[in-house]
Amino acid sequence: MPKIVDHEERRRDIARAALRVVAREGVRGADLRSVADEAGWSTGVINHYFVNKQTLLVAALREAARGVGDHMTSVQVRESGTDRVRDLLEAGMPLDDERAATCRIFFHFTAEGIIDSELAAELAGYYAWWRAQVRIAIEHAQLEGQFGSFDAGDLSESLVALAEGLGIQGMFDNATMNPRRLRRHLAVMIGRLSLPHEIREVSSHA
Amino acid sequence: MPKIVDHEERRRDIARAALRVVAREGVRGADLRSVADEAGWSTGVINHYFVNKQTLLVAALREAARGVGDHMTSVQVRESGTDRVRDLLEAGMPLDDERAATCRIFFHFTAEGIIDSELAAELAGYYAWWRAQVRIAIEHAQLEGQFGSFDAGDLSESLVALAEGLGIQGMFDNATMNPRRLRRHLAVMIGRLSLPHEIREVSSHA
Repeated sequence: MPKIVDHEERRRDIARAALRVVAREGVRGADLRSVADEAGWSTGVINHYFVNKQTLLVAALREAARGVGDHMTSVQVRESGTDRVRDLLEAGMPLDDERAATCRIFFHFTAEGIIDSELAAELAGYYAWWRAQVRIAIEHAQLEGQFGSFDAGDLSESLVALAEGLGIQGMFDNATMNPRRLRRHLAVMIGRLSLPHEIREVSSHA
Repeated sequence: MPKIVDHEERRRDIARAALRVVAREGVRGADLRSVADEAGWSTGVINHYFVNKQTLLVAALREAARGVGDHMTSVQVRESGTDRVRDLLEAGMPLDDERAATCRIFFHFTAEGIIDSELAAELAGYYAWWRAQVRIAIEHAQLEGQFGSFDAGDLSESLVALAEGLGIQGMFDNATMNPRRLRRHLAVMIGRLSLPHEIREVSSHA
């Protein structure tokens, strides 16, 4: 009897191997040969699933997006208040090797996506989803009196932009903008922005 | 008498032509042929000054950085308070064609810079300078009672990250994150963060 191969599962295995190579060596290092070695298959097998490096990287991007999505969903379920907002933002920042690999691939495709409209739409979809998750968390925190004076949609866009901008600086200027510093900046900003609405009222009458 | 050629000035002319091509067609469109047409020289002349597209783009990056630097210096001299902080941040965001071209080149090299350490150091230097300018503006605003409870250095890092993150979303998701929306997000965040120090004191005793 011929062995039954789960092709979808094998594609995902290879995409995860590509993510591990990117974590170690960056996007440039993730050629078909290195990924084949990492996955434990011949380049012939890899070529059967992916015609070139670009399609392999797109699969790695989707695998990374799925991982980030699963993590964000678990943050939504487990946490509340400003902690939830913070952890949803940190989920998309390069604060450890795994997330740094995810960010590198996203960043690589964001640069590509400015030109390729199909890819741009896919990336815009991921960011829209991230902002929607943060928005939900802000709306919940607002019921507890935090982030009082903000429009939750607007604030989610600004906070995701902040997380993105901090992450990018962390990726190419790691000496200054190390994970600890990125975390601190995010925490200070969230702390300040979440101050209760009443405070603003006091200020407008001061 | 032979004609005297100012080689430095010609190099800069060609770099500025490259910036105009990037503004119209993106970084991918800025090959030596298109830049030669734009500059009004043969590709032979372009090749005399730039051995390949990469060195031409680096020259364009430096020309763009010089333009942004001049603009920021004039903002420092002309403005004060939160307006100055805002305009220094907007100077680095893709809010018109010229700044979008500058951002595209920076972004292209930021992606490259994650791997090339010499380029990473040059880019880190530009960002350090940008943060330093914003920090000076924040410190001045603090003398007028704004941004009271913040460390100016920390806040400058967070605000530059915010401007960077907003700008990136503007570049690849222009339909949602158009210049008007980016400006509004930045203004709302600066408005909120600049609230006087006393307000925080009230909150800590509430």
